[in-house]
Amino acid sequence: MNRKIKYGLIGGSTESSIGRKHKNAINFDERAELVAGCFSRNGDTNKAVGDYYNVEPDRVYGDYREMAEKEAARKDGIDFVSITTPNFTHFEIAREFLLNGINVVCEKPLCFEVDQAEELIKLAKEKDLVFAVTYTYPGYAVVKVMKEMIEEGKIGKVINVDAEYLQDSMLDQIGATDGSIWREDPKQAGISHVFGDIGTHIEYFVRYVTGLHIKKICAISDKFGHKLDINDNMLLEFDNGAHGTYWASKVAAGYLNGFTVRIFGDKGALEWHQQTPDYLKYTPVDAPIQIISRGAEYLTEKSANLSRLPVGHPEGLTIAFANHYRNIITTLIKKKNGEKPTAADLDFPTGEDGLEGIRFINAAVKSADSGSTWVEM
Amino acid sequence: MNRKIKYGLIGGSTESSIGRKHKNAINFDERAELVAGCFSRNGDTNKAVGDYYNVEPDRVYGDYREMAEKEAARKDGIDFVSITTPNFTHFEIAREFLLNGINVVCEKPLCFEVDQAEELIKLAKEKDLVFAVTYTYPGYAVVKVMKEMIEEGKIGKVINVDAEYLQDSMLDQIGATDGSIWREDPKQAGISHVFGDIGTHIEYFVRYVTGLHIKKICAISDKFGHKLDINDNMLLEFDNGAHGTYWASKVAAGYLNGFTVRIFGDKGALEWHQQTPDYLKYTPVDAPIQIISRGAEYLTEKSANLSRLPVGHPEGLTIAFANHYRNIITTLIKKKNGEKPTAADLDFPTGEDGLEGIRFINAAVKSADSGSTWVEM
Amino acid sequence: MNRKIKYGLIGGSTESSIGRKHKNAINFDERAELVAGCFSRNGDTNKAVGDYYNVEPDRVYGDYREMAEKEAARKDGIDFVSITTPNFTHFEIAREFLLNGINVVCEKPLCFEVDQAEELIKLAKEKDLVFAVTYTYPGYAVVKVMKEMIEEGKIGKVINVDAEYLQDSMLDQIGATDGSIWREDPKQAGISHVFGDIGTHIEYFVRYVTGLHIKKICAISDKFGHKLDINDNMLLEFDNGAHGTYWASKVAAGYLNGFTVRIFGDKGALEWHQQTPDYLKYTPVDAPIQIISRGAEYLTEKSANLSRLPVGHPEGLTIAFANHYRNIITTLIKKKNGEKPTAADLDFPTGEDGLEGIRFINAAVKSADSGSTWVEM
Amino acid sequence: MNRKIKYGLIGGSTESSIGRKHKNAINFDERAELVAGCFSRNGDTNKAVGDYYNVEPDRVYGDYREMAEKEAARKDGIDFVSITTPNFTHFEIAREFLLNGINVVCEKPLCFEVDQAEELIKLAKEKDLVFAVTYTYPGYAVVKVMKEMIEEGKIGKVINVDAEYLQDSMLDQIGATDGSIWREDPKQAGISHVFGDIGTHIEYFVRYVTGLHIKKICAISDKFGHKLDINDNMLLEFDNGAHGTYWASKVAAGYLNGFTVRIFGDKGALEWHQQTPDYLKYTPVDAPIQIISRGAEYLTEKSANLSRLPVGHPEGLTIAFANHYRNIITTLIKKKNGEKPTAADLDFPTGEDGLEGIRFINAAVKSADSGSTWVEM
Repeated sequence: MNRKIKYGLIGGSTESSIGRKHKNAINFDERAELVAGCFSRNGDTNKAVGDYYNVEPDRVYGDYREMAEKEAARKDGIDFVSITTPNFTHFEIAREFLLNGINVVCEKPLCFEVDQAEELIKLAKEKDLVFAVTYTYPGYAVVKVMKEMIEEGKIGKVINVDAEYLQDSMLDQIGATDGSIWREDPKQAGISHVFGDIGTHIEYFVRYVTGLHIKKICAISDKFGHKLDINDNMLLEFDNGAHGTYWASKVAAGYLNGFTVRIFGDKGALEWHQQTPDYLKYTPVDAPIQIISRGAEYLTEKSANLSRLPVGHPEGLTIAFANHYRNIITTLIKKKNGEKPTAADLDFPTGEDGLEGIRFINAAVKSADSGSTWVEM
Repeated sequence: MNRKIKYGLIGGSTESSIGRKHKNAINFDERAELVAGCFSRNGDTNKAVGDYYNVEPDRVYGDYREMAEKEAARKDGIDFVSITTPNFTHFEIAREFLLNGINVVCEKPLCFEVDQAEELIKLAKEKDLVFAVTYTYPGYAVVKVMKEMIEEGKIGKVINVDAEYLQDSMLDQIGATDGSIWREDPKQAGISHVFGDIGTHIEYFVRYVTGLHIKKICAISDKFGHKLDINDNMLLEFDNGAHGTYWASKVAAGYLNGFTVRIFGDKGALEWHQQTPDYLKYTPVDAPIQIISRGAEYLTEKSANLSRLPVGHPEGLTIAFANHYRNIITTLIKKKNGEKPTAADLDFPTGEDGLEGIRFINAAVKSADSGSTWVEM
Repeated sequence: MNRKIKYGLIGGSTESSIGRKHKNAINFDERAELVAGCFSRNGDTNKAVGDYYNVEPDRVYGDYREMAEKEAARKDGIDFVSITTPNFTHFEIAREFLLNGINVVCEKPLCFEVDQAEELIKLAKEKDLVFAVTYTYPGYAVVKVMKEMIEEGKIGKVINVDAEYLQDSMLDQIGATDGSIWREDPKQAGISHVFGDIGTHIEYFVRYVTGLHIKKICAISDKFGHKLDINDNMLLEFDNGAHGTYWASKVAAGYLNGFTVRIFGDKGALEWHQQTPDYLKYTPVDAPIQIISRGAEYLTEKSANLSRLPVGHPEGLTIAFANHYRNIITTLIKKKNGEKPTAADLDFPTGEDGLEGIRFINAAVKSADSGSTWVEM
Repeated sequence: MNRKIKYGLIGGSTESSIGRKHKNAINFDERAELVAGCFSRNGDTNKAVGDYYNVEPDRVYGDYREMAEKEAARKDGIDFVSITTPNFTHFEIAREFLLNGINVVCEKPLCFEVDQAEELIKLAKEKDLVFAVTYTYPGYAVVKVMKEMIEEGKIGKVINVDAEYLQDSMLDQIGATDGSIWREDPKQAGISHVFGDIGTHIEYFVRYVTGLHIKKICAISDKFGHKLDINDNMLLEFDNGAHGTYWASKVAAGYLNGFTVRIFGDKGALEWHQQTPDYLKYTPVDAPIQIISRGAEYLTEKSANLSRLPVGHPEGLTIAFANHYRNIITTLIKKKNGEKPTAADLDFPTGEDGLEGIRFINAAVKSADSGSTWVEM
């Protein structure tokens, strides 16, 4: 049995919260081993992290280009690389590994420009590589139940979507930045702060569970004395004619990470709250509200099997993330073994999803900057 | 002591849910006696209702014009009239009573046209009459706490407003009307169904608690095969520069009467849900979420005194409505006795509020009809 | 049509919260007219209240005995009396009116002694009088849905009951009373404070919805420096063999009027919270939790008809109370007209329920006083 | 830097949910490496698991005694062993490793008999070994905030405790077992099913956060046709004189893993729900209810530092478990390096806690079996 594969990490120093998140998610199923990395631009930190993770010193690289080349050249080189560095570096790093024929898992957002994303997608396709982008939330088992229920017609045709992603972390910086946040620097964050950082989570999540694409968007942004947007309200029209609103904010008192998605159909509605991620509110037309739980016996076998813990025990973000990696790694193992991955194996966000995210950011910023007119996506 | 005053009712047959609501609200404090009415266009019903309510037969009128004239002529005529008939009749009836010098309490929406509303307001002013319009929800004691807290700066400057009024009553009529709803008939309902029926509750409530006026609006409506709107999503800008979203819908599965208002400031936020109307969610910046209860000892004396029932016992809609009538009747008694009503006595919605509601409906419909462009209000 | 009947009030000064509660509940349907009363032991107050309520001066009595006799002697005497005075006076007053052949509605608790209650019940029976005791909470429409569902077997056989009634009003009097509460005085309150005041609400409610009677009880009480109990925890066994716990407390921080009842059966469970009284949590075995709403279309016609307000609008305590009076008054009118009341008309708590409450208090106090041993009820 | 230590696993086949839970928790911080194990009584499975986990074949043992001896004899032997086998095997295995001088982490319940537990504790003490027992729930960061707040006097003196642990997994086995559950077999489960399996979680949790010990207990159990208890209601008295109730059940419809603890003091109350484990409900006397969040800025630095994920992102059970192992492993590393562990390092449940759990089970079963009399603990 050859279940285990090898991977490398770009970024992911032990101090990096996002790097640890990837590492813990990969560890959860213990099917991939970290054997190479370029963990930090600081040489000492880089070495220390490699040491901490038991990576052989000659595979702790000071430069990601060198790493891509050398790992590609090794017979026992890495099967995939996870990129967990700041946003503005994603494109160059991802391209380098794809060019060298190494599968890529990239933290969201993929990159800043549509043509960059298209280039990466094209590269991955030409070389038949896996190219994943990690939007965490659809990894929750219950979100997959939500998607399954919509596909099965449990809420009928979608007629309205209302989603919000609210945080309060910048409430004490209204009027003036304290300079502590790299996401406020256009060089590092791109043309948007909040559309890009949390708005894209909404865009992908809704598209994932409904299959709908945004047709046009009318957005209004508040910068409150900053260079980039920190509060965004949007009206939307989807490709099936349904309307809706998205709201992303970092100045919403009372909301720590209040990501809520409500999908309304002509036969019922579904509602999911990130802070209670194992539960789903479902209301069929003319029937009581239902609270559906992850892992419950009344779910389909497929849905119940997505669970990792006994029912009623909170799985949390680590497991949601691990669910993505489970599928990514299964896909990689199957491809390596010459097997064809199933649709279930391929259920993870990809470069195409990253590209749609960039288009969303572009359209939203364009609308906000043009006096909140409607912009086609 | 002359605490009690006399009133008449237009509409309000025992079968009318809105008529009963007014009657029960007035009864709650037992300071006004029903002595005249024009309860139904059907003569037998009219007579039966008068009989049920112990109204003298000669003061049960077949025609509101006759009633206005005769009651105005009596020495012991009514002090005020409550109008609870369908929307399209409000203007004519209210005008008739105002012309005859009788104070008016009118169910919302006041009327259909701005100039009609202005005419009524002018009439009431000229004749120094009370002219109230009954938007129920700000009658809840805790909503007044909300207003008080915003005035006191507890959430700082308002920076975003998010409010929704969701019902599901028309979910089974997507695509085709069953003809059962008079609000779908432009003759009876005016230019809007949902903006007018429930959207105006949002408009008044937010203005009441924040003091902010809408500056411009961008609305998108869905009619789903009907003549008038049944789902409305809106972006807004307020006169202090803050943005926000309103959403009014009658096709939102899972929401029976889901009226929720969230006011975000730069120092905190407040949130109220109509289905748990005695509680207020308050989050001061950098502090835990608080759940504030009607009648609690930690409230200001003024706020605590608004309560009618011991803390923890749900007051319900009847009491919210009775709170409006308490103030209206106190104002009327004071004026009758030559006293000056206080600001607290005058805390009830008036013709001016009704007028602002009409302007809101007009702007919203104009925006929706013009391809969802921004319309100044 | 002779729909209206006449009643008198004992207690119920305009300052009395419980008196107003009865008055407003009776007013709600406007089928009974207040024509006599003994409102206060203070002559001036008594007169003022009579005046306020438009009661003829010769029917404002200084003494309840005189009132009972004189009203019984009048041809147009009262059809029933509502007793809203402090607990220790209930027995004498109720007896006097029953002896004079007048129907009685008595605030809970009925009285202090089993033999007193039995005497009143016997009297009412002999004279064929209505003798109601007002436990408010089962008046909520959704509580009747709960009872109906249990009767229909929706949760199977009841196997456990967990109920609590928690308040925090005495939290600042731990260790020493401030003397402000008459319920702490055994002369006025009887042998128990909290078992009697709020514990009996639990006892009646559970019996009402399940039909189960308590077989034995093991109680432990805390007095925290007071003469009577202010916190009571109980284990119970019911007559069908099921077990459960009741908890009544006035020192539970965080609970204003936290009355919660959970009934567990072998096929499902039902849960009701007094602070959200229009909703019912229902979990059928192997199915999602459901939130059932008062007045919803999916309810039986019978259940839906119990509603007074459109779905989603909180009815509140006044309407729960009015529902009891609706049935009491319908029963009285039918009896007056020689008709037989239906089972639905007779759905209100009676003297027998008051008696069971006294037995509960006695058993609970006996258990607590005897070192928390099991006491048969 | 010598941060990493080595461990072995007893049980923990990849099919074992509890074994995986331990493995994932240890993995989370990557400071301990699995190098030996006795994973299954089935030789093939044992070998396969060892292979899966990359354990050297000569350290995959068929017998735990052999493993204890050989690992003790190796210079690079394991630093600790985690025991995740069925309950009835814990004692023998733990004793063997302790006898061989190896630190032990044992899944709860520790064992069946008081003298067994005492023997293990004595052994560990004599040999200066770490002997931990894994009660999961106090590992949640917010539970430690709860403990800290009680210690700081935020709720004053504890006056009542109400805790429940409700599941519904046996609801379809009322009246007859389907034989699927080993916990129903006294040989494997001991004298109790539900007291032992979930009741002990309540006992430890309450003791952990309040520091209170149970003085006496009065319990009533339902077996519903099974050999051991499946529903247990209890009254309690604590060593400070406070009273309370515990309830443990596997037949509570609507509760998947409904572990709720409410601690009431004379200055406030605290409430924690396992299904929303990152939040704490706190009510100070005469102030609004507060919702406290894990990781929030308003917490003490100590409390905030316990967090592993950004605020508002659910940590879930894996992280709660990892928090225990973080402390256990830090303690082991410090001891190995000759350093003294701090009180914070030693914050994990131990053999003494396991012993108290056995005493609780014994007292509860004795009470239930003796007609629900009070039994001293």
